[in-house]
Amino acid sequence: MDNKMKNLYFAPLNEIGRIRNEFFDPIKKARILSDIFRINTLYMITKAGSGHIGTSFSSIDIVTWLWLNEKDFLYFSSKGHDVPAFYSVLTGLEKLDFNLIHKFRRLGGLPGHPDINTPNIITNTGSLGMGISKARGMALANRLNGEIKKIYVMVGDGELQEGQIWESLQPAVNDKLFEIIVIIDHNKMQATGFVDKVSNLGNLENKLHSFGWETARCNGHDFESLQQVFSKFNKVQNKPKILIADTIKGRGVSFMESTMIGDSEHYKFHAGAPCFEDYTNAVNELLDKIYIELKENIRLSRADWPKRPVINKKLENLIAAYGDELLKIAEERKDVVILDADLSPDCGTELFREKFPKRSFECGIAEQDMISVAGGLALRGKLPIAHSFACFLSARPNEQIYNNATEKTKIIYVGTLAGLTPGGPGHSHQSVRDISALGAMPGLTLIEPCNEEEARLAIRWATEENNESTYLRLTNVQMKLPYNLPTNYRLKKGYGIFLTKGKDIAIIGYGPTLLKEAFLAAKQLTKKGLSVALINFPWLNNINSEWLKKLLSYAMIITLDNHYIAQGQGEMIAGALAKNFKNHPKIISLGVKEIPACGQNDEVLKHHSLDAESIAKKIIKLN
Amino acid sequence: MDNKMKNLYFAPLNEIGRIRNEFFDPIKKARILSDIFRINTLYMITKAGSGHIGTSFSSIDIVTWLWLNEKDFLYFSSKGHDVPAFYSVLTGLEKLDFNLIHKFRRLGGLPGHPDINTPNIITNTGSLGMGISKARGMALANRLNGEIKKIYVMVGDGELQEGQIWESLQPAVNDKLFEIIVIIDHNKMQATGFVDKVSNLGNLENKLHSFGWETARCNGHDFESLQQVFSKFNKVQNKPKILIADTIKGRGVSFMESTMIGDSEHYKFHAGAPCFEDYTNAVNELLDKIYIELKENIRLSRADWPKRPVINKKLENLIAAYGDELLKIAEERKDVVILDADLSPDCGTELFREKFPKRSFECGIAEQDMISVAGGLALRGKLPIAHSFACFLSARPNEQIYNNATEKTKIIYVGTLAGLTPGGPGHSHQSVRDISALGAMPGLTLIEPCNEEEARLAIRWATEENNESTYLRLTNVQMKLPYNLPTNYRLKKGYGIFLTKGKDIAIIGYGPTLLKEAFLAAKQLTKKGLSVALINFPWLNNINSEWLKKLLSYAMIITLDNHYIAQGQGEMIAGALAKNFKNHPKIISLGVKEIPACGQNDEVLKHHSLDAESIAKKIIKLN
Repeated sequence: MDNKMKNLYFAPLNEIGRIRNEFFDPIKKARILSDIFRINTLYMITKAGSGHIGTSFSSIDIVTWLWLNEKDFLYFSSKGHDVPAFYSVLTGLEKLDFNLIHKFRRLGGLPGHPDINTPNIITNTGSLGMGISKARGMALANRLNGEIKKIYVMVGDGELQEGQIWESLQPAVNDKLFEIIVIIDHNKMQATGFVDKVSNLGNLENKLHSFGWETARCNGHDFESLQQVFSKFNKVQNKPKILIADTIKGRGVSFMESTMIGDSEHYKFHAGAPCFEDYTNAVNELLDKIYIELKENIRLSRADWPKRPVINKKLENLIAAYGDELLKIAEERKDVVILDADLSPDCGTELFREKFPKRSFECGIAEQDMISVAGGLALRGKLPIAHSFACFLSARPNEQIYNNATEKTKIIYVGTLAGLTPGGPGHSHQSVRDISALGAMPGLTLIEPCNEEEARLAIRWATEENNESTYLRLTNVQMKLPYNLPTNYRLKKGYGIFLTKGKDIAIIGYGPTLLKEAFLAAKQLTKKGLSVALINFPWLNNINSEWLKKLLSYAMIITLDNHYIAQGQGEMIAGALAKNFKNHPKIISLGVKEIPACGQNDEVLKHHSLDAESIAKKIIKLN
Repeated sequence: MDNKMKNLYFAPLNEIGRIRNEFFDPIKKARILSDIFRINTLYMITKAGSGHIGTSFSSIDIVTWLWLNEKDFLYFSSKGHDVPAFYSVLTGLEKLDFNLIHKFRRLGGLPGHPDINTPNIITNTGSLGMGISKARGMALANRLNGEIKKIYVMVGDGELQEGQIWESLQPAVNDKLFEIIVIIDHNKMQATGFVDKVSNLGNLENKLHSFGWETARCNGHDFESLQQVFSKFNKVQNKPKILIADTIKGRGVSFMESTMIGDSEHYKFHAGAPCFEDYTNAVNELLDKIYIELKENIRLSRADWPKRPVINKKLENLIAAYGDELLKIAEERKDVVILDADLSPDCGTELFREKFPKRSFECGIAEQDMISVAGGLALRGKLPIAHSFACFLSARPNEQIYNNATEKTKIIYVGTLAGLTPGGPGHSHQSVRDISALGAMPGLTLIEPCNEEEARLAIRWATEENNESTYLRLTNVQMKLPYNLPTNYRLKKGYGIFLTKGKDIAIIGYGPTLLKEAFLAAKQLTKKGLSVALINFPWLNNINSEWLKKLLSYAMIITLDNHYIAQGQGEMIAGALAKNFKNHPKIISLGVKEIPACGQNDEVLKHHSLDAESIAKKIIKLN
């Protein structure tokens, strides 16, 4: 391959087929193919611009081995973010349309996390910890049908921090479900660092033994060991089995391997696409390895290097603004403590953690524990601020948040990655149900800021003005925003603020994603002679009935939800209108109506008719 | 005491004080006082008509020991339903107003599960598994304040099935929180039977060891052993400690002890008040035991035997009707399987379990596991019906339900104990947030039937007519209902049915509890010359816009939610009105506005202004 031309490379199906059909011994075949699959995995992630290299490369040898050698079995990955590796294997082995490798994380292509609409994906994953339970359900159903079929489940080591894993281990033993074989991809790293540092798992082998599982441990990159272990497992017919596969995150490309970095260094290849240089060096390394095994070069196909959005330093970054303001607050108030669930870089807490390590609690991937710990901290006089992705934070510890709410302590919950975008990770991560899941918590005010300034105001409001608890909903997508808030703008609960004035139609929404689209839609509508007012209404479960009167003069009100329409802000506003006024303007709610599509951000917004053009068209049609 | 007079008895404070002040050795004192506290526990539960004797009696020796002998410590019970014992100890030791023993499970009295509004209750519990996490939060806060204070946490053995327990164990070790001392009240029984049968815990000691806890085991009724263990624990300064206290459910009264029953027998004293005979025999036994220790009789105060509602065989029992219809469906369809989470008698599944044991999966207190198991069963062609209390089912596995929803498999979720009543258990059990928590799940229809007939129709509709998933919300309170459904009534999604005709005002609601109150309110209003239509609208997150037109002719619409007003049915209806009609009747939503009060059912409804009289008054005021 050419190091200078900015290209992508993948191993085409016929080349893979040629090697599959060669009369190699199974070990050698797996060794060669797993590296070829690594090349295609890199291709998919680099082309998509996002995806998880580290975990794909740590698990790919095992996945390759299983799919080359097992017959009549079920397989899925519970952690799910290793799916690029799995796609690479499936497409390479003709279990999945090969052309889909060009459409990873694209609309109509291969989703960022597993989804059963993809052939040979048998369950949806992406939210962690559910896999062993799901496998148990499958095994029980199979047994009712008189069938015992092996079910392999890949789990992450960080994933073992989830309580559901431990909840599910014992019942599988009690039911003697020996057809379940769990593989721990023990690469010793999770999203934000080494598992031992984030939330040490302790003595894993002892734990698994104590739960009654048949336990084995081996090098997860050594095919001979894998062969032996799986063969040994086949003989155990009275209990489920679990393999601690010692693996290396990023395995296969020297500089991507987690073992190459120090304890405190940041591992670069957990999520995200490599730069051109890293990509090219990685492919070359893999080609060299393949050459050593195969004694010949394999033929790669060439594709265009993907266009990347130009990095613009002026993009609004709400997470960074939030994090910066949080730090200032922390400097002023000693009672503020923060909690994280292995997602600190995406939650804006890194500055705080660095400056105030003693007031920072990293809970690992254990949201229920984190939220009840926050509850305990609040009961003893602290002001805890708990962080995770909105999809997880609103749902996984839902009852724990309610329990805290019944104590009427003050806690701030910060849910990031809110809304439809980024669209790449898919529906497990696209949080469009959190307003519903949290909206009826007593004493909890939900708020989503529309830009950096409002993000700063929101965390200030939550800490200083609100005596009760707050849920802060934050978008992670950085974007250039076409609007500003007025000078001296302050948050006032239940009050909106006009971003543009207009006479005919009022569009009301929250958060930068849809307000930006609405702003652009309003521009288009203005050209067509419609006068549109755009209102930023950051309050997701509160509206002041006095302020509401401002909407009465319009002929039409459009609400915009970056959330399911059901139980979103729009329904709250419509309900308030109905309850306060017998006559009011026509009100129409736009928002998410179906399970979010996976794809690039613009694709996803368009798919859900929430891009500027769709919004403008819809309004013209309604008018 | 007199065996013939139908009376209640309790040990008064001065009598308890006399013994406290006697110069007994600590062991003897604990032995006497714990039995006196048992008498007062029995008094509270019998007077209230509900409460948990079994777990109170298994834990009371430990609680007595700690509160007699520990200084400067924090204590709470994570399981929470042992709180009558704790109240008995606290009141007896003057840590809580003694007069409150007469107001257990009454409005303004002592809640059915712990609540921090009660002195010396330091955290709210009742939903299981949160205790160790909460304790960790407390310990971390204390340490930030430069304080290390012992925190004793009582947990149940059944409670150990909850994933959060295991999620919380390792972090406490990682943080070396040696001030946390967990006591497992290992009475070997949970709500529906022996722990070993419901969901075997396996080798508990090995498990706890493997998680790195300092582990001890002793007879939890032997004060000398308790003294030794706690003293030994004091010396361990580098890790948290956990005691497996072998206890006996119902300990202290021979015929209440779980060890007296066989493996398949039903244990009578998990929840509920004893009959007069059992009560009297129990008090006499305890008095005899106390006499042996004290060599004298203690003086008990007498109180009236509580009035109990007369049992009327004609009460509507929705759970029984549901269970009966479920059984019929199971006989017709082999694909139907059921899942339980240790609450089968309250979920109507006992007949099914008896008849189809292979298609019945008891998951123990592990709702997340249960729901993902249901997901796995559905993926392999079964129609799973998963049961628990609505408060737990809607919240604990909230993300697991969403994960299933994204797979678009068909699953039926049955949440019982829905709504404000029974009011005795308190807000952890009063499910008034489930419509919100589940209302935006894609492809999930929420429905609450208003009587036995509709309960049967609802499970039929869910299995036979609805191609998607259903959440069936069921009230457990049995009551005589003043209305009937019309002959040949059938469920039609999004359509309501008139229970009474009227011209002026339409009251719209669901479920027997509030429809009954509304019916009685309507009667009162009719007397005042108002013509009231009462509509049963069982659809909690759907309304048909054609049917909605039927509401337009009224001058006023009142919606009634046995749920928080926020995101309840009323808001959905108001929103639909606003979206469909620019002019519509005045609409007012009544429902729960604050955290549910604990008390008798009538007290609770009145407190929340949802009894017939309050509803009628409100409507007159609004009219």
